[in-house]
Amino acid sequence: MDRTRICQMIKGLAELNYSGMYQKDFLETWYKTDGEIAATFAVADILRGLREAGISTRVFDSGLGISIFRDNSTRTRFSFASACNLLGLGLQDLDEGKSQIAHGETVRETATMVSFMAETIGIRDDMFIGKGNAYMREVSAALEDSYREGVLEQRPTIVDLQCDIDHPTQAMADMLHIINHYGGVEKLKGKKIAMTWAYSPSYGKPLSVPQGVIGLMTRFGMDVTLAHPKGYEVMPEVEAVAAENAKAAGCTFKRTNSMEEAFEGADIVYPKSWASFAAMEKRSKLYGQNDQNGIKKLEKELLAQNAKFKKWECTEKLMKSTHRSKALYMHCLPADITGVSCKEGEVEASVFDRYRTPLYKEASYKPYIIAAMILLARKNNPVDTLDKLLQAAGPRVL
Amino acid sequence: MDRTRICQMIKGLAELNYSGMYQKDFLETWYKTDGEIAATFAVADILRGLREAGISTRVFDSGLGISIFRDNSTRTRFSFASACNLLGLGLQDLDEGKSQIAHGETVRETATMVSFMAETIGIRDDMFIGKGNAYMREVSAALEDSYREGVLEQRPTIVDLQCDIDHPTQAMADMLHIINHYGGVEKLKGKKIAMTWAYSPSYGKPLSVPQGVIGLMTRFGMDVTLAHPKGYEVMPEVEAVAAENAKAAGCTFKRTNSMEEAFEGADIVYPKSWASFAAMEKRSKLYGQNDQNGIKKLEKELLAQNAKFKKWECTEKLMKSTHRSKALYMHCLPADITGVSCKEGEVEASVFDRYRTPLYKEASYKPYIIAAMILLARKNNPVDTLDKLLQAAGPRVL
Amino acid sequence: MDRTRICQMIKGLAELNYSGMYQKDFLETWYKTDGEIAATFAVADILRGLREAGISTRVFDSGLGISIFRDNSTRTRFSFASACNLLGLGLQDLDEGKSQIAHGETVRETATMVSFMAETIGIRDDMFIGKGNAYMREVSAALEDSYREGVLEQRPTIVDLQCDIDHPTQAMADMLHIINHYGGVEKLKGKKIAMTWAYSPSYGKPLSVPQGVIGLMTRFGMDVTLAHPKGYEVMPEVEAVAAENAKAAGCTFKRTNSMEEAFEGADIVYPKSWASFAAMEKRSKLYGQNDQNGIKKLEKELLAQNAKFKKWECTEKLMKSTHRSKALYMHCLPADITGVSCKEGEVEASVFDRYRTPLYKEASYKPYIIAAMILLARKNNPVDTLDKLLQAAGPRVL
Repeated sequence: MDRTRICQMIKGLAELNYSGMYQKDFLETWYKTDGEIAATFAVADILRGLREAGISTRVFDSGLGISIFRDNSTRTRFSFASACNLLGLGLQDLDEGKSQIAHGETVRETATMVSFMAETIGIRDDMFIGKGNAYMREVSAALEDSYREGVLEQRPTIVDLQCDIDHPTQAMADMLHIINHYGGVEKLKGKKIAMTWAYSPSYGKPLSVPQGVIGLMTRFGMDVTLAHPKGYEVMPEVEAVAAENAKAAGCTFKRTNSMEEAFEGADIVYPKSWASFAAMEKRSKLYGQNDQNGIKKLEKELLAQNAKFKKWECTEKLMKSTHRSKALYMHCLPADITGVSCKEGEVEASVFDRYRTPLYKEASYKPYIIAAMILLARKNNPVDTLDKLLQAAGPRVL
Repeated sequence: MDRTRICQMIKGLAELNYSGMYQKDFLETWYKTDGEIAATFAVADILRGLREAGISTRVFDSGLGISIFRDNSTRTRFSFASACNLLGLGLQDLDEGKSQIAHGETVRETATMVSFMAETIGIRDDMFIGKGNAYMREVSAALEDSYREGVLEQRPTIVDLQCDIDHPTQAMADMLHIINHYGGVEKLKGKKIAMTWAYSPSYGKPLSVPQGVIGLMTRFGMDVTLAHPKGYEVMPEVEAVAAENAKAAGCTFKRTNSMEEAFEGADIVYPKSWASFAAMEKRSKLYGQNDQNGIKKLEKELLAQNAKFKKWECTEKLMKSTHRSKALYMHCLPADITGVSCKEGEVEASVFDRYRTPLYKEASYKPYIIAAMILLARKNNPVDTLDKLLQAAGPRVL
Repeated sequence: MDRTRICQMIKGLAELNYSGMYQKDFLETWYKTDGEIAATFAVADILRGLREAGISTRVFDSGLGISIFRDNSTRTRFSFASACNLLGLGLQDLDEGKSQIAHGETVRETATMVSFMAETIGIRDDMFIGKGNAYMREVSAALEDSYREGVLEQRPTIVDLQCDIDHPTQAMADMLHIINHYGGVEKLKGKKIAMTWAYSPSYGKPLSVPQGVIGLMTRFGMDVTLAHPKGYEVMPEVEAVAAENAKAAGCTFKRTNSMEEAFEGADIVYPKSWASFAAMEKRSKLYGQNDQNGIKKLEKELLAQNAKFKKWECTEKLMKSTHRSKALYMHCLPADITGVSCKEGEVEASVFDRYRTPLYKEASYKPYIIAAMILLARKNNPVDTLDKLLQAAGPRVL
């Protein structure tokens, strides 16, 4: 990308209203204004443009990015590490195995103690309904307090790297992929997107992906269909958000129990397995009671329930029914690919293979989205910061 | 903090005598001269001032900080990581689980092998009497050798992040908190500080905190009282250090078995649980013999012994007896708070709550203290280095 | 090292032909041309010279170095971390315990997902015959694909940190030690080097060290002898490489089953234990079948077999038989030292002690060798990059 184009993009950013982001966190997308969402996309694209032009994006000379992962993760871990590195932050993992969190420390105290040099805390906590998002808000309140009291010199921004309710970095990266795929947000009016459940032989996949998708993608004038078998309902609160969004954007949000119906004529399809909200609630309760037998029993039930819906697979045949037979296939990865990663899964191997490159590009947006979230929360005048980077044009590689 | 003030502080540093710190380690505070202790406080305050003024404190363009933690730790881990990051060092953890240390390598060889690019090694090893400090000295000798032989291009400095004898980064951070709280070291003459044992339902807390406190705080003209139940004696060698310090500083160091007596009229109170030296010695022996039954038996005995002294709690009533009823309450954190983190503990919840902000500020000094220790050991002319940072005034954040 | 000397070395580099290294990996040394090997040594020496002159070697303003270690490692881990840090890269460990690799993800996808900001991936995978090198080639193909498709903006270079076939960073560091020890590669003509098996009470040491040594050191005009008891043969393919190398270089490569014969008149000795290729193949198969009893049985057999050859020890007496009784003793460390790290081992304690400093120097080359491999693969014009570093002469430490 040439400098003239980057310069134009920075000018575009300057026209947006996103003043509410400074000193705040990035949790659910629906608490961000349209201007804030647009600014996040703009900054992500500008940072990518700078990097592609070989220009340093080092905003921080020192400072830490802290990651808290409450379950295993490769991609998200590396996305956050990449975003921090891009901005000049050192990464420090708060591994609860290595820490004293488990030994009765309050969240408030730990959050403060690790944050003296922190610019951002990325948290992934998506396993238990009612827990992850609440935990992030608790950390946020602690940071707010400690910053107000002068204990922290800076207010680290929390980036929700996936919680029980939303998966904002995923949904935003997905959305930026769509925007750039179609050549701009103004091209999306009337496009049809199908967020559909798909069969997986594994158990308890989080709801935050479909929830994140319907909670965000209903804001851009696209007709969004959520499809799943009965029993795989998502959180009603998020459906309500999607419905309101669609109304405001002059498009539709609808639900169906037919994958075929959702795919029919769709421009974009996002077939992906998840557990039902009711099952996740039950599971959270059983974990709370440490009821190992109950958990095993529930797991069996859920797998048996899943197995009833093996037909929910993204096949070549289904793809044929989409708009011009070539809808954009999306996935947060890793996908359960039939005959590759499992016997029967979410998607036929030939479909997945054909879309491998766009899928990887979709994923490539996440580090930039996270970096944009950090920059917009930490800098009062990001236009000025980005201008300085462009003017200095320090080489990223000597 | 404005630049004029920072400039004055650098001038103040230039008047101190601390030439013995270059190319050395920071282990027990009592092996450091008064000038060296004062220089450490000065550099910590200057680095904090620079950071608050938004000025880069990146002294190292490349180089590693290595951490060796022999037990779990959140705060100390992040303090060391923060200090390294502040100075521009990359952090690399020597996790003995991941390394071959356990498989018969000599300390000497490993210390050298990991240090080719190392500027500092932070070590926490506080579990066993007679072990941690000795291990640090062994690593130190190895580094000294390898530097002398030309195998290492630089001499990494060891920072004692807590051993069986002293906890210098804690005591120094605590002391700097006191100095800044009262507005200067010259204001401390005649202040009364009570380092007292307090009840905790947990077992085997290290002695290095009370030992670090009495070994350091007796140097500043304050009257220091060490209070504990019979049987909770600390190392006699450290008591001797405290007594000598007090004599030299023209103040007192005394011991009592009454918490009430220690609190009476105190300006500063530091109530905190620890195991007795005799018990820790016994435990170290049992671990050495891998006598699991013996360890369990000892644990039971110690908890039963602790339980006799539940009245050793920092209550509102006790706080009333302090100077003007408002002594500065201190703790290294995390505290055992009655009714919060345990049923009965070291401190009443209302006392802890009232002092939360000062406690967090106390903790906030540790990264700067560690960074100062590193800088003073690694730079022959730290005044010049700090001057350069101030003159260059590179922005910490763009 | 002074700047004039560094400048000369950069001029020397400019005369070499190593254009094939750009955008490639560093796996087996024998797939690199003589010019490429020479360039790697030259860049390593230049980087070391710059660092010793206090000049910043920060080539990357941002970017990640990713490490994948499939078994425990201290030295190699720190060597890679040091190399990355030297060049300005942040280190991010892909710990398969923390990642989802084990859960059926394809290597291809993971390799891409972690590499959006990666400049290098260091991999150590040496446990199973037929696995490690193959895995690296699989990762390489994935990166190549994703770079070609435009998914990755840059092509991360793979550094083989030890596989089942070669140990290029070790052999190259060893070789650079020899070159600098004798004062230049032109001094090596006719020198005799003995790579010999030695007894160790441990089981299953990888063959990649002796293979790496004979595969590389036969290229420099030295007469190389590989000595081991019957049954400890290395991979025949690598022996063939060594024989061809020697032929091309006008020197000899021979095999013997006598340690004495190998030591006789040797200028350099490298006594080191390894398992036999046949045993490692058998072990790989048993692991593949998860045959725990078979593995235990094999282990017993191999230890019993090893024990027949306790006389294969590097003793003072053997050292006496070397050239002028003072051959250069080499080892990749850690060594099994008789009476120190084990009852009976690879080397007598007095021999090891006498060579401690050269051994540590030998090890000190590895970070620079790795950094050179990264730089040569990532920069199209490394002469220009190194010139810029020298001209800028940014201080490594302020």
